Amino acid sequence: MSGNLFSKRVTIALDGMGGDNAPEIVVEGASLALKNHDNVRFIIFGDKKVLRHLIEQYPNVRDVTKLVHTDEMVLDDDKPSYALRRRNNSSMRLAIKAVRNGEADGAVSAGNTGALMAISKVMLRTLPGIERPAIGGIIPTKGEPCVMLDLGANVNCDADNLFEFSVMGDAFSRVIFQKENPSIGLLNIGTEEVKGNEAVKAAANMLRESDLDLNFYGHIEGDDIGEGIVDVVVTDGFTGNVALKTAEGTAKMFSHFLKDALKSSPIAMTGALLARTSLQKFKDRLNPSLYNGAMFLGLNGIVVKSHGGTDALGFANAVGVTIELAKNDINKHIVNEMIQSGHIPPEDDIELDDLDDIEDLDDLDD
Amino acid sequence: MSGNLFSKRVTIALDGMGGDNAPEIVVEGASLALKNHDNVRFIIFGDKKVLRHLIEQYPNVRDVTKLVHTDEMVLDDDKPSYALRRRNNSSMRLAIKAVRNGEADGAVSAGNTGALMAISKVMLRTLPGIERPAIGGIIPTKGEPCVMLDLGANVNCDADNLFEFSVMGDAFSRVIFQKENPSIGLLNIGTEEVKGNEAVKAAANMLRESDLDLNFYGHIEGDDIGEGIVDVVVTDGFTGNVALKTAEGTAKMFSHFLKDALKSSPIAMTGALLARTSLQKFKDRLNPSLYNGAMFLGLNGIVVKSHGGTDALGFANAVGVTIELAKNDINKHIVNEMIQSGHIPPEDDIELDDLDDIEDLDDLDD
Repeated sequence: MSGNLFSKRVTIALDGMGGDNAPEIVVEGASLALKNHDNVRFIIFGDKKVLRHLIEQYPNVRDVTKLVHTDEMVLDDDKPSYALRRRNNSSMRLAIKAVRNGEADGAVSAGNTGALMAISKVMLRTLPGIERPAIGGIIPTKGEPCVMLDLGANVNCDADNLFEFSVMGDAFSRVIFQKENPSIGLLNIGTEEVKGNEAVKAAANMLRESDLDLNFYGHIEGDDIGEGIVDVVVTDGFTGNVALKTAEGTAKMFSHFLKDALKSSPIAMTGALLARTSLQKFKDRLNPSLYNGAMFLGLNGIVVKSHGGTDALGFANAVGVTIELAKNDINKHIVNEMIQSGHIPPEDDIELDDLDDIEDLDDLDD
Repeated sequence: MSGNLFSKRVTIALDGMGGDNAPEIVVEGASLALKNHDNVRFIIFGDKKVLRHLIEQYPNVRDVTKLVHTDEMVLDDDKPSYALRRRNNSSMRLAIKAVRNGEADGAVSAGNTGALMAISKVMLRTLPGIERPAIGGIIPTKGEPCVMLDLGANVNCDADNLFEFSVMGDAFSRVIFQKENPSIGLLNIGTEEVKGNEAVKAAANMLRESDLDLNFYGHIEGDDIGEGIVDVVVTDGFTGNVALKTAEGTAKMFSHFLKDALKSSPIAMTGALLARTSLQKFKDRLNPSLYNGAMFLGLNGIVVKSHGGTDALGFANAVGVTIELAKNDINKHIVNEMIQSGHIPPEDDIELDDLDDIEDLDDLDD
């Protein structure tokens, strides 16, 4: 994800007011992101007075940023349907609108996840061949990080959805991790073909029989994620969300027990003090900020959700992923594969009334 | 789980030949279990010659054990339906048969999970009011361990199943952890009522409106498991299996990174050496052997599955749980609650042909 003077120029729209620590970490994060990425411009939406004051402190941001004022913002407890219908001039909506109108190549928000997905779905629609967008995330493993999707946009998924997620995850892994032929695993409760629910079994058949150049590894189990067995983990949004959060909870419990143990005696504390540099490296390796950024894949435009409580480093990572997705035109990859696969169902129009089934995904903010 | 001279006398049937390290760890595990539990007798099924030689090394086992010879055993790669139809004299089947015939109060096997569930379902049938048995497990948390079910017996679950699992988990928590009013959480992708799939939402309503003395906490998310928010975690077998294994995989990854860090420099190694007692305590706290034993709940008889690759300590834990479930008559608790709840559907007969839908659960052995 390093900079390149000759890389494509991209403009990223930032929701200046979304998230617990906005607008400060938005501007600071943008500044950090610029250190690793060239040829980037920003449009930041929000309270212009506050934002202008902030960007004065980060000249590298100030020099490449256009501020667009709005008083309105989406609140954390807005229902997605409410945010969609009533927050017409919210900083979040304006950022997505900039993507739709071609003024920006991607948008980042640390605000309300459900609202962001709802507004994105309605304003951007899905790519040809993609029935439903998914939320993808970068997950640490013993080896290189993998991408996992869906992390919660779709509670119920059929085989077509899982197939589409596989194509999106494949494109993501190629673009962000420069994998030439990323391996794809379907999350299941066993590795044999006969296991799992109907959707998983049918999706496995579709992937095996597909003419696409997909490297389908087969079924994987929960513990294979951390082993780094595959580059792309595909699952429905219910299972994916539970798996992601269970992993987070386990990591927290582990840290808690470790801290307890190292504080349990003076000699242990001395040992921990001696090992502190290494323990810090260990901690850094699993720092959630490094994995921040939930990508909304399958939309006719790039939208990335930052964790609501993230710090500037985390926001910078979300911005960095957005820049790379835009520079490498991930959606062209996805559409090409969908056309090749012949798997292009009639495009559905999303009506406002369909939004009753949009899941409120604020829970990703915990 | 400590012994009590005046406790009920129970007989536990052991599959002497099931698991990677049988029969050695079966006998050694039985010996370890006897150190914490009084008034226990064993019937061990398997190769009598080998077993006789083994129990001579553990006089405490020899004194309370009846050996029953059989040449036959279920193999790890037997399909459940095959094991059920063809392994009529297997050590596994004979152990379950002893429970059915009232010769034993519970059975333990470290063999093929799918076969064990299939044979148990057919030979023992489910308790009145219970449509499907579930697999329960004891899970470490920051606080006290919790019980989680289903861990993989039922890929698709409806609200009735989840309600039944709640009753079974409640009874388990009362019996094994002496919780007076265990809190029950439904695993979901958000804590609001509107979230989740139809089964989870309907089950939440049933639990809220139930006349039973159930302490329904509400929806929980994956990271709440490790926080120890509730005493009982209820979910379908697909999600539960993925969550359990993802937690295991995360713990392994965490240990791997920690080991790496503490070996990364001489000074870190010195620190680790100083802290070794505390680090060992930390490791012990998460030792999988302490959590060994997957309980088949909802059957008309007590069956516990030990991890196939466990050591003697792990097998002893599985035996210990079985003893406590038997001494405290968990099934009486479950049936009483089901009768009180008025939630007793017509009892279905399980026919051999139904077994095509029995999931092969060997994956719990990893």
